[in-house]
Amino acid sequence: MDSLDNHVKSVFMNFDITQPNHALKDALMRKINQKTKPVGALGLLESIALQVGLVQQTLSPQLMNPTILVFAGDHGIADAGVSPYPQTVTAQMVYNFLQGGAAINVFARQNNIRLRVIDAGVNHDFSAHPDLTHAKIGYGTVNFLRRAAMTVAQCEQALSTGASLAREEVAYGANVLAFGEMGIGNTSSASCLMRVLCDLPLDQCVGRGTGLDDAGLAKKQAILSDALHFHQLGADKPMQVLATFGGFEIAMMVGAMLGAAEQGAILLIDGFIATSALLVAYKLQPDILNYAVFTHCSGEAGHRCLLEYLNAKPLLDVGLRLGEGTGAVLAYPLVLAAVSFLNEMASFESAGVSESTCGTESVGA
Amino acid sequence: MDSLDNHVKSVFMNFDITQPNHALKDALMRKINQKTKPVGALGLLESIALQVGLVQQTLSPQLMNPTILVFAGDHGIADAGVSPYPQTVTAQMVYNFLQGGAAINVFARQNNIRLRVIDAGVNHDFSAHPDLTHAKIGYGTVNFLRRAAMTVAQCEQALSTGASLAREEVAYGANVLAFGEMGIGNTSSASCLMRVLCDLPLDQCVGRGTGLDDAGLAKKQAILSDALHFHQLGADKPMQVLATFGGFEIAMMVGAMLGAAEQGAILLIDGFIATSALLVAYKLQPDILNYAVFTHCSGEAGHRCLLEYLNAKPLLDVGLRLGEGTGAVLAYPLVLAAVSFLNEMASFESAGVSESTCGTESVGA
Repeated sequence: MDSLDNHVKSVFMNFDITQPNHALKDALMRKINQKTKPVGALGLLESIALQVGLVQQTLSPQLMNPTILVFAGDHGIADAGVSPYPQTVTAQMVYNFLQGGAAINVFARQNNIRLRVIDAGVNHDFSAHPDLTHAKIGYGTVNFLRRAAMTVAQCEQALSTGASLAREEVAYGANVLAFGEMGIGNTSSASCLMRVLCDLPLDQCVGRGTGLDDAGLAKKQAILSDALHFHQLGADKPMQVLATFGGFEIAMMVGAMLGAAEQGAILLIDGFIATSALLVAYKLQPDILNYAVFTHCSGEAGHRCLLEYLNAKPLLDVGLRLGEGTGAVLAYPLVLAAVSFLNEMASFESAGVSESTCGTESVGA
Repeated sequence: MDSLDNHVKSVFMNFDITQPNHALKDALMRKINQKTKPVGALGLLESIALQVGLVQQTLSPQLMNPTILVFAGDHGIADAGVSPYPQTVTAQMVYNFLQGGAAINVFARQNNIRLRVIDAGVNHDFSAHPDLTHAKIGYGTVNFLRRAAMTVAQCEQALSTGASLAREEVAYGANVLAFGEMGIGNTSSASCLMRVLCDLPLDQCVGRGTGLDDAGLAKKQAILSDALHFHQLGADKPMQVLATFGGFEIAMMVGAMLGAAEQGAILLIDGFIATSALLVAYKLQPDILNYAVFTHCSGEAGHRCLLEYLNAKPLLDVGLRLGEGTGAVLAYPLVLAAVSFLNEMASFESAGVSESTCGTESVGA
């Protein structure tokens, strides 16, 4: 697997993710600052308006066909007892998604966001369903205690499948994609990705997942410490780290994020696991951050540190720790509001409102 | 004016704001905890689902005809130079609201919230407009440096008008009311209300408002310190404090909040000024807090302390400092999501999903 990063480099360096042209920045800031409000008074929404305008290279951006991709996969590490839920819950929750009864269904319906569920590697065979994409890489990853979670070929397949799915959505007309996941055990994968790629102490990277008690948390930390010590990987090989600690759903999300950003879509990043996928993508293509909107800070320990590492300012901080993309979908109205005020608010001039007698500062400055 | 609090006590103690019956609490918590998610995984949304269920006394609450009332008024203290905007901006912004070009218009449209603008005391005569309610108490308050901002009669009139407006909205079918305001100089009123009623140091209560620079902030603090020293009021006379530091729009909001809570509506509390109105209402009727959802923590200095004083956990914290009710309207989709998950999500049993092997904790506990 040592060659994986070199190989992937050749594949993924072909991804053309660049910083959006900033020539439009001054004009966007002028438009934002001329709206009938004190300069900066819409806070983070002003930064997002600027970001979306730059990504779309227009003073009048639009969010079209918002779509959430929920990737599901099983994890061999679940056998080690890192979650209070049995692994079968992954498949059960996929059925719940398809029946419309999960939190992500409720919130996606409320906010008019299309939901697409992807079987990236659940340990179960699903029948055909219009909302389900069959993209199974395997029946769950290998327990990564003493082996890599997935093979080089599997990791490549997950990445390229994810990228294809994202390109499909953009071709279908979506220019804003949210990313969610389901996979019993996947906070363990995310913690290991964070531990190695951010080079932060393990205890800052591990949390209670779906609800471990103190003893369960200590056990999870010991298990992950053991696995990390065994594999001895460094931050310079992000692809190898991804393949080792895995998550088919995480790897496929990495590919989808890269594919979506390449197509110029806005990425709505959900919680701890989705952010760990973005972390891998960022290590491969740092300019992906220009396309990412961080939708919330999870109640899962580790996420706050991970967001700080990425210098991210999340929109929501209300103790969500459910995954599925719920935070991304719940924050979507704020992203839409950022675009709406830019397009619809009157300017001081058009409304005949007097301006401040103080000088103006720059948004995003 | 010494008799104001006694007089108002006789009027406002007739307000029947009581804590909702908590007999339903266990059943609501069971319903929340049986949803297909780890216990507590929807964070603050679970607390709000519980709160709305208790207020409406049902396991299946509904939010109906959400409405935002934006109260506008002018402030004599603006003459002292506490704002970088001229007082005429209050009337100009009311026109902007009526023309649909302000931030509150954009966000209310996006989230399907009805907007009603109330002239509580703007220094301008407006023509008739379907979205404008004429309820002018006066052409702006008196500068409160050496006199009370309003008379006893004006304060009473503002309170009773506000209560009537809220009752009208509830009779019209709204069971969730948001409160916003517009008034050049009104952060000065709010700071004085907070200073006296919370008994906190003045520098914790005063911020830059619509954008004062350091010199402007220092001047504002000196002016307010002078006025507070002159009037020498204590926290035991909330009505007298309200009449003295005023804001017709603030007093009318106090009445509207009391009237709405009495009718069992959910109150969406916006930023610093709306929270200062709630503070007065809370001092009169402490159980009003059961009906209040704190929608955001403003970027205006003072608001965070004020929220802490009220033990409030705001939904958003994204540096908004615009007023108009914008934070309340932007947070509305989260309140709706709280109600929606309670009504629409599947339970472990109905979805056939296995439960955690760990014990469950209580939501809101």
